[in-house]
Amino acid sequence: MTRTVLESKSKTVVIGFDEPFCVIGERINPTGRKKLAAELEAGDFTTVERDALEQVACGATVLDINSGAVFNNKMAEDPRYADNNFVEPPLMRELVERVQAIVDVPLCIDSSVPGALENGLAAAQGRPLLNSVTGEEERLEKILPLVKKYNVPVVAISNDDTGISEDPDVRFAVAKKIVERAADFGIPAHDIVVDPLVMPVGAMGSAGRQVFTLVKRLREELGVNTTCGASNISFGLPHRHGINAAFLPMAIAAGMTSAIMNPVRPQEMEAIRAANFLMNHDPNGGEWIRFARVMDAVAEGTPFPEASAAQGAAGGRGGRRRRTA
Amino acid sequence: MTRTVLESKSKTVVIGFDEPFCVIGERINPTGRKKLAAELEAGDFTTVERDALEQVACGATVLDINSGAVFNNKMAEDPRYADNNFVEPPLMRELVERVQAIVDVPLCIDSSVPGALENGLAAAQGRPLLNSVTGEEERLEKILPLVKKYNVPVVAISNDDTGISEDPDVRFAVAKKIVERAADFGIPAHDIVVDPLVMPVGAMGSAGRQVFTLVKRLREELGVNTTCGASNISFGLPHRHGINAAFLPMAIAAGMTSAIMNPVRPQEMEAIRAANFLMNHDPNGGEWIRFARVMDAVAEGTPFPEASAAQGAAGGRGGRRRRTA
Repeated sequence: MTRTVLESKSKTVVIGFDEPFCVIGERINPTGRKKLAAELEAGDFTTVERDALEQVACGATVLDINSGAVFNNKMAEDPRYADNNFVEPPLMRELVERVQAIVDVPLCIDSSVPGALENGLAAAQGRPLLNSVTGEEERLEKILPLVKKYNVPVVAISNDDTGISEDPDVRFAVAKKIVERAADFGIPAHDIVVDPLVMPVGAMGSAGRQVFTLVKRLREELGVNTTCGASNISFGLPHRHGINAAFLPMAIAAGMTSAIMNPVRPQEMEAIRAANFLMNHDPNGGEWIRFARVMDAVAEGTPFPEASAAQGAAGGRGGRRRRTA
Repeated sequence: MTRTVLESKSKTVVIGFDEPFCVIGERINPTGRKKLAAELEAGDFTTVERDALEQVACGATVLDINSGAVFNNKMAEDPRYADNNFVEPPLMRELVERVQAIVDVPLCIDSSVPGALENGLAAAQGRPLLNSVTGEEERLEKILPLVKKYNVPVVAISNDDTGISEDPDVRFAVAKKIVERAADFGIPAHDIVVDPLVMPVGAMGSAGRQVFTLVKRLREELGVNTTCGASNISFGLPHRHGINAAFLPMAIAAGMTSAIMNPVRPQEMEAIRAANFLMNHDPNGGEWIRFARVMDAVAEGTPFPEASAAQGAAGGRGGRRRRTA
């Protein structure tokens, strides 16, 4: 059974075929969040810290940390700030340090800038997940040595130098190539978490079925865990949380083992917790029964993060304290 | 591709691997509904008629008609009413006639009493679904000739004279036996809709996975359509609509093609409509976009049946007008 082991300072999270679905919180990401980018530029980490606490309370067992900020004001004063290779490495280090000072969950170090990834890996306690390598030659050559050096698992995205293929067979072939290249570096398949790429179903009617088929093949033929940016599936559609909340259980039934997503959405988290139960990954429904109390409080008007925190979601499902001190 | 064809007076509904999920409305059933049983005893069909209209408005494309009423008052006066063979046949006839007078969808004739089934088959216009045969010898001998005589499809429930097995392999074997016995009568596999029996996940942690595996086997090895009493999965659990709303998309992803369920529940119907879209059974998301408007109205306080009726759910997804007049 494939097990991808992540660690924080004192917790271990396993992504695996026989584990509850791993929710990787996506909120700490300044891409497309102008207000957050402006805060980071001003050295204000209030939102980052709130996002860290809320996501863990709501059930994220891993937090993605993306350093892709654009510092518009500083750029106007100092042209070096126009270069992400200048901006991201120190920002990643500070984000990692700030977040792990207040929550004890494994991190997912997320950047397009190798220097930021290396800084994140150096600053992270335990065994973080690296996000990401692709099938692009330059990226393979830069990222796989980092993965090997730090002995960490890595997200592998199924696009290459030709872009993102609409043909799922091509995306499978790209994933296979990454797994093979990683093996050349001595990186085992169980440390590769493949993102088969989720297209919007509004633009491509076969998008859902493509993912379900790919997840099954990736698992059976390559023996790898899988992840995705789950909300892509509903891009551009009305009432999109309803699409997400059906997509996630279907992907889980097909064998998907993690997603990078917003855990502060009760509808999606309800779907995942129910799916865990239905996959027999919630012994005696203990997590479901606790979650039902959260949803009762939400129905009475308590915001989801508060209701979750009150029921002690933090450190629950998927997060395991080590037995050694 | 397996296609089970049902017909009402003027509409055809196909249950099939390449069709939207078929929702069979379960509400017209006096079992466990004392108030409804009392109304039927008094000759009052108000609730039946309202249930027929509401279920079709909410998206049921087939209506189950169960005649299993207990007439307590009449029984006290006339001992013949203690016998369901006396009560159900005329009741079934009247239920069928009342329902098809106000809605034009195929019916599912549901009784444990062969005389009620025969009366329902005789009264129903078009090509109803018969509910049900089991693997019990007596039932096979009584029901399969009716199926053949009326040339209708039949629900086959995977229990036999030994009861309901907790072993999914035994339930598969029972389904296989029914399909083979039906073949002896000249009834094709595409006219058999197997119910693999859904256990409560609260009592048996493997219940969900059993169904997903069975549905896949039934489809691949026997070539049959499948159905289930969907809400059984969440029996006894808190916040059970959340379990149902994850179970249905997972079962659909596994290949389930219909369910006998309550369509007046927005959470379950949302999950099914999203799953249809994700299975590429909702071209361009037209049904989803219409349904999103229903959910907007529900969010603003309109009851689901009213909101659905206002958006013209009736006759939508899965219901097709015949081209001939």
